[in-house]
Amino acid sequence: MTNLRHVMALAALTTGLLAQETNADPLLVAQWQQVLERGLEDGRAHDTLARLVAAAPHRLSGSDGAAAAVEWARAEMTRLQLTNVRLEKVMVPRWVRGTATATVVGTDEPLGVLALGGSIATPAKGLEGDLVMVRSFEELRALGDAAKGKIAFLNRPMPRTLMDTFRAYGQAVPQRSNGAIEAGRVGALAVLVRSMSTRISETAHTGAMAYDPTVERVPAAALATAHADRLGKRIAAGETVRIRLTMTCETHPDVESANVVGEIRGTTHPDEIVLIGAHLDAWDVGHGAHDDGAGCAHVLEAMRLIRALDWKPARTIRAVLFMNEENGLRGGTTYAADHLAELPRHFAAIETDRGGFVPIGFDTTATGAKRDLIARLAAPLRANGMGAVIPGGGGADISPMGPHGVTLIGLLVQSHRYFDHHHSDRDTIDAVNDRELQLGACALAYLATALADAR
Amino acid sequence: MTNLRHVMALAALTTGLLAQETNADPLLVAQWQQVLERGLEDGRAHDTLARLVAAAPHRLSGSDGAAAAVEWARAEMTRLQLTNVRLEKVMVPRWVRGTATATVVGTDEPLGVLALGGSIATPAKGLEGDLVMVRSFEELRALGDAAKGKIAFLNRPMPRTLMDTFRAYGQAVPQRSNGAIEAGRVGALAVLVRSMSTRISETAHTGAMAYDPTVERVPAAALATAHADRLGKRIAAGETVRIRLTMTCETHPDVESANVVGEIRGTTHPDEIVLIGAHLDAWDVGHGAHDDGAGCAHVLEAMRLIRALDWKPARTIRAVLFMNEENGLRGGTTYAADHLAELPRHFAAIETDRGGFVPIGFDTTATGAKRDLIARLAAPLRANGMGAVIPGGGGADISPMGPHGVTLIGLLVQSHRYFDHHHSDRDTIDAVNDRELQLGACALAYLATALADAR
Repeated sequence: MTNLRHVMALAALTTGLLAQETNADPLLVAQWQQVLERGLEDGRAHDTLARLVAAAPHRLSGSDGAAAAVEWARAEMTRLQLTNVRLEKVMVPRWVRGTATATVVGTDEPLGVLALGGSIATPAKGLEGDLVMVRSFEELRALGDAAKGKIAFLNRPMPRTLMDTFRAYGQAVPQRSNGAIEAGRVGALAVLVRSMSTRISETAHTGAMAYDPTVERVPAAALATAHADRLGKRIAAGETVRIRLTMTCETHPDVESANVVGEIRGTTHPDEIVLIGAHLDAWDVGHGAHDDGAGCAHVLEAMRLIRALDWKPARTIRAVLFMNEENGLRGGTTYAADHLAELPRHFAAIETDRGGFVPIGFDTTATGAKRDLIARLAAPLRANGMGAVIPGGGGADISPMGPHGVTLIGLLVQSHRYFDHHHSDRDTIDAVNDRELQLGACALAYLATALADAR
Repeated sequence: MTNLRHVMALAALTTGLLAQETNADPLLVAQWQQVLERGLEDGRAHDTLARLVAAAPHRLSGSDGAAAAVEWARAEMTRLQLTNVRLEKVMVPRWVRGTATATVVGTDEPLGVLALGGSIATPAKGLEGDLVMVRSFEELRALGDAAKGKIAFLNRPMPRTLMDTFRAYGQAVPQRSNGAIEAGRVGALAVLVRSMSTRISETAHTGAMAYDPTVERVPAAALATAHADRLGKRIAAGETVRIRLTMTCETHPDVESANVVGEIRGTTHPDEIVLIGAHLDAWDVGHGAHDDGAGCAHVLEAMRLIRALDWKPARTIRAVLFMNEENGLRGGTTYAADHLAELPRHFAAIETDRGGFVPIGFDTTATGAKRDLIARLAAPLRANGMGAVIPGGGGADISPMGPHGVTLIGLLVQSHRYFDHHHSDRDTIDAVNDRELQLGACALAYLATALADAR
């Protein structure tokens, strides 16, 4: 659209866009406006993300890339002149993807596959089996012996009708997490899981999976949604589809890695902590730009903004870039264990791990007066559609602190595009918009400071 | 993020995300839910857009591509089994871009430039001049004779601090619209205008500009923001920067084109019209995927959804794909003139011309009871953050109906990414997300039907 008169009229009229009645504290409104303007005028979140993915494009726990990411993050926090910059040791698993190939036997039609994280390899020469397609574990179990010696093909899509794609993910992802266990139970040779994506494409999406020590381990791979649809139609039409799958994954002994920590010390209550965190590790496909490079950029940019604005929070704001969220959560569990004595002085912990999209609000474990406080602090963001406060878990890395009474908060962002990119080759920085990413950093800087100053 | 327990907990808890108290009519809520679910489950908006940009990637008014777009749109409406599918004749300008090149004299450093739409050519051998940089017309006028024989360089950025990038556009775009007139007044040889974009890149963004018959015409080009910043720094440091600019644009006589119209006839008040519109023409760089291919896809998909749901609106819903929004608005003015007698029976006109992003609400010229009606109808969308109703102009194509008393409504969407792509090579379909585009079509289908059924 270009019509000038029209644009000028709109410019005048949309000033109050979405400026609902929020009854927000004018001082908090001013603080939000200050960080929003500074962040949009002179934001560095996207630059920070660009430097992270350049320094460590692949940073799966235990890899050289993850070690490079740890060193990069320490250097960044030092450059930002944070206090008490340190590495906190975490022992992490080391799984190496190797290669994965799959073809339809007879046609040599190649399929978009990726090993699931933690899978065993196939035999070196690969394995071959007919697909048995199901949409649920109940269907798989009902097959009984009919699945024996076959490849279990779990083809339940993420439901597209849900507005919140994380809900859709929650409904489909047990296929990935537990598919190998269920396939092993019925004597299948391997399991092929439809990729967790709302997009129909030839790109496979990886992710974590588990084995059960009491069940035979079988190789597990993700299949691109376009190929899952194509094979699904052929099978539904009565065709027998036979697949050859070859994967060379390796699991090595645990290695030492670290959470990276830095602080802005509180002026009046330095021993009380508001933690802001994200995870530094990422799957080794794509560059983890949204998952969770965006969260790392949010955290580092929030710390930069707080310093740049010369805000002096009463409590300490502690940035933690956790290691190993994707395949073990060792960073999160180690932090909670190592800081056990200090957890009662954690006033709140905020996690950002939903991508670099437009913020919509926060979820929190808080109830009662603490929940009301968070809602009051978030009120200024409601004028921008970013201040919803709903019940929720906050995030995986901070979750081990929950049982110790720490208030957990998660930054929520729009979820429509997340699963186009998540855990795939498509999770690259060109998919992260500068302004959208920056808004998340502004929201995080604001809420962390407001919590650090709250009476 | 992958931690399963965490995801499952969130899935349960975020069901009510943003489900504010809306006091919406339960029947309207059901209607919105119905179109939302159908649209997300089995949406075709993105496919429709893909077919448009394949059939007519470049469709500037008067071009062969625009003619192909008209034929494509007629065929689409026929395929959708709309009623009274027709072309309504519109005479449109025909400006042909040709080529544009610019280099820094002495270095032969190439610059990202595009002719502004409607510009005259430079002499065939190009023209050369020192840049005089200003940030406002006041500064340019104050230069007086100092600008004579120079190239006026209008380098005022779109302010990044505004949440609504259309406001930022409104503040900067007079440089583009009127820059050639102001430059001609001070005797400049040509005008180079900083691209209208919130992104710093080497891609130039074109757009419409005007001449004043009383002022000498000078060639006008847009300069990529990254180059504008680079040259701006050199000039600010006192350097003289001399530019060679060559453009081969041509203006031809007007040619015949058309608005493309199709209807779903009203069941009880077929003579009363709810119009939904977008513009079929686009600038001839990129593919006009967001501007306004997305709007065309919204309109066609809304019509498809209404039919697929077997809704039977009381009033007629009329889809209009307007020609020549970008450089003349002839489609909009011709529609208003040709339908003058019928305008009193236009219950409302809704335009979508802000890209295929997540909807946030509507702007409208309506006041009083009509405004209250629109707010009541939009209430169900507020649960999804898409139901704001604010004062505004609706859109350029429908604006000529405003003075005749037609209620104008515009579909508002999130604006953060729009000016990354707008009027540039980057306005391609890979920048349009399937779900985000589809949500706009759902919102449009819903509101059009609700208005068509309103008492």
